[in-house]
Amino acid sequence: MTHPGKALLPGFVNAHSHAFQRGLRGHVQWSKGEDTFWSWRDRMYRLANQLDADGIEAVSALAFLEMAEAGFTSVGEFHYLHHLPEGTAYGDREELAHRVVRAARRVGLRINLLRVAYQRAGPDKDRTREQRRFCDDRPEQVLDAIRRLRAAHQDDPAVSVGLAPHSVRAVPRAWLEAFSDFDGRIHAHVSEQPAENDQCRAEHGMSPTALFAEVGLLDERFTAVHMTFPQSGDAELMRERGSGVCACPTTELDLGDGFLPIDHLAGIPLSIGTDSHAQIDPFAEVRALELHARGLQGRRNVLSSEDPDGLANRLLDVGTVGGAAALGLDAGRMSVGQLADFVIIDLEHTLLAGSRPLPAIALAAHPGVVSETWVGGQPVCPDRGAIVDAAVRALADVDWGPK
Amino acid sequence: MTHPGKALLPGFVNAHSHAFQRGLRGHVQWSKGEDTFWSWRDRMYRLANQLDADGIEAVSALAFLEMAEAGFTSVGEFHYLHHLPEGTAYGDREELAHRVVRAARRVGLRINLLRVAYQRAGPDKDRTREQRRFCDDRPEQVLDAIRRLRAAHQDDPAVSVGLAPHSVRAVPRAWLEAFSDFDGRIHAHVSEQPAENDQCRAEHGMSPTALFAEVGLLDERFTAVHMTFPQSGDAELMRERGSGVCACPTTELDLGDGFLPIDHLAGIPLSIGTDSHAQIDPFAEVRALELHARGLQGRRNVLSSEDPDGLANRLLDVGTVGGAAALGLDAGRMSVGQLADFVIIDLEHTLLAGSRPLPAIALAAHPGVVSETWVGGQPVCPDRGAIVDAAVRALADVDWGPK
Repeated sequence: MTHPGKALLPGFVNAHSHAFQRGLRGHVQWSKGEDTFWSWRDRMYRLANQLDADGIEAVSALAFLEMAEAGFTSVGEFHYLHHLPEGTAYGDREELAHRVVRAARRVGLRINLLRVAYQRAGPDKDRTREQRRFCDDRPEQVLDAIRRLRAAHQDDPAVSVGLAPHSVRAVPRAWLEAFSDFDGRIHAHVSEQPAENDQCRAEHGMSPTALFAEVGLLDERFTAVHMTFPQSGDAELMRERGSGVCACPTTELDLGDGFLPIDHLAGIPLSIGTDSHAQIDPFAEVRALELHARGLQGRRNVLSSEDPDGLANRLLDVGTVGGAAALGLDAGRMSVGQLADFVIIDLEHTLLAGSRPLPAIALAAHPGVVSETWVGGQPVCPDRGAIVDAAVRALADVDWGPK
Repeated sequence: MTHPGKALLPGFVNAHSHAFQRGLRGHVQWSKGEDTFWSWRDRMYRLANQLDADGIEAVSALAFLEMAEAGFTSVGEFHYLHHLPEGTAYGDREELAHRVVRAARRVGLRINLLRVAYQRAGPDKDRTREQRRFCDDRPEQVLDAIRRLRAAHQDDPAVSVGLAPHSVRAVPRAWLEAFSDFDGRIHAHVSEQPAENDQCRAEHGMSPTALFAEVGLLDERFTAVHMTFPQSGDAELMRERGSGVCACPTTELDLGDGFLPIDHLAGIPLSIGTDSHAQIDPFAEVRALELHARGLQGRRNVLSSEDPDGLANRLLDVGTVGGAAALGLDAGRMSVGQLADFVIIDLEHTLLAGSRPLPAIALAAHPGVVSETWVGGQPVCPDRGAIVDAAVRALADVDWGPK
């Protein structure tokens, strides 16, 4: 069976997503006065506290729809909206997690729901009003929630559940210690902002990565999201322990975080995520790893120059096998025994004409080249119109605050 | 007349293109050993010397087709392939320029053919074998060529002809002086590489920008392409004289040049170009200006925070009015007396759903949102199949050299 003009590639894996943040797009690109990660976060909190359960499901479904259309087949959803805005539990304590899982499955994506643990605003700082929706009081509540979620979705092989201690800012050391035996994937925001490193050193006398190592979480289970500002010794620790880094380059630029210092991370397994969904474009994420490094280092082919397709294979691997490893999926390669998650690329797209396909796909493509997305051997056929309409309705009345 | 679900925007202006370099895509992403701008240039020269007139027209047409599909309505073609590979003239001395103009007009784009002046490899360095195709012996030959090109295309209002002294490396001071009275737009590569600045200081005792000023070229006619490494005093000079900068961010990263230091260029008119066509995506170019600045400065909204649409308007202006000014076109705005060059954006694209349209278009879109491109009040309807087939044929036999 031949498919002239088409190429099959493994589906992309989006290893770091906050699906409801898709609702921010186009609405948070301004601010009176100084605008930074922290002023962006104020606006993000506004959205997080205005969406009801239906709204969260609707906006999440829109994010997952856009992912499927862009060539993602799996998502790691770093899920931190757990309760009613005032912090009280839903009748079903896992209501919102179930809604997000349902949104992914309605679209057809495979999902690892990374259930977030969040306790506080920071060292010696109680949770704020805006954070009550994210918080638990004891680490056992987090582990119980994961047990219930796993039981509820045990019949769907496309759903798995992991653990996400939000960050060393939001989670105290005793909680991290309580998680050390966790059986599953563990993701955390690590060293995204210099302030986070400084606070961690003041509170614990070490870097966030060193703290995760000391409490027994930094091993093959662990993915450090961002790592924009690794501290001395962090990369060595991660290599030793077999932990990975998930980079989210388009979000990290949108937020003004900075550039991934990829030259410090050699030998560490990499994956990509679209995080805040400023853009949802796997090609843009993977090529940013190479292109930002070129800009910083003043040379070409930073990540590979093995052969004509070496760089493309390296970048596409980060977006596929790298993400599958971060989420604990047997996916990312087209081979026997692997999940049949793949995308069909339209080789007759104008942007690929006359080009060597793999390098052109990795370095020049956009989601317009994706003609079909298949998950588990089935084409993804979401009810696009209904998903878009529900999300548009959910976002229509959001109060974005003073302009 | 309403168009539900559609928005009209002014067409994008691609102020810096080497159309034949579209043939490089996917073929130059590797190199044994150190890979830099200079090793990339070796491969680019290979392509430049293997294409015959038909091949140059075919690959140029493919580049222009992709531009039209991506929302560009005009192009500034920095054209430096003038002769047969061994340096002898074609029967019609302007054969290749006519071919490139014809390629643009077959697609339907408006073109300013910026006829390049090129004399030498560098200070005290004769042209190399690979550069013979680009070179003239006297500046009068360049001006004569422009006169003939203008005469040949005087009946087509969509064609204009400008002058492009390639760079201070390739053009001696006496030539620049001979061009001082030129009536039209003048573009030059300026401060793309540190080596270029160093050589200019050694030869002339000043920066490239200061040299252009001293010979009387740095005024409202002048666009400095790249400006990745402006020298002390350059920005002040450009502001004083009313000259512009054309940034080509995706190419500048592809080549490992570096990031535009936009904080040094406040008050200087900006435009964008896709240059080597590593990507052809006006949205990616304009948003890179803001996003690279965010990464470098660690904050958001670097280029504008006036109002919710302020940043989007600023970025889209760079891609439209900014480019039109650089090419001397009355275009870039939807208003009476302006050229009717516009694009129709599909507001129902998934990536725009639920978003404030202008910021989402500027910061999250890709060419897949462009549903139609109109030039001079007419929809662009190129013969896509024939253009693609001819380009694929022209590129099939290129010898890319040792791998």
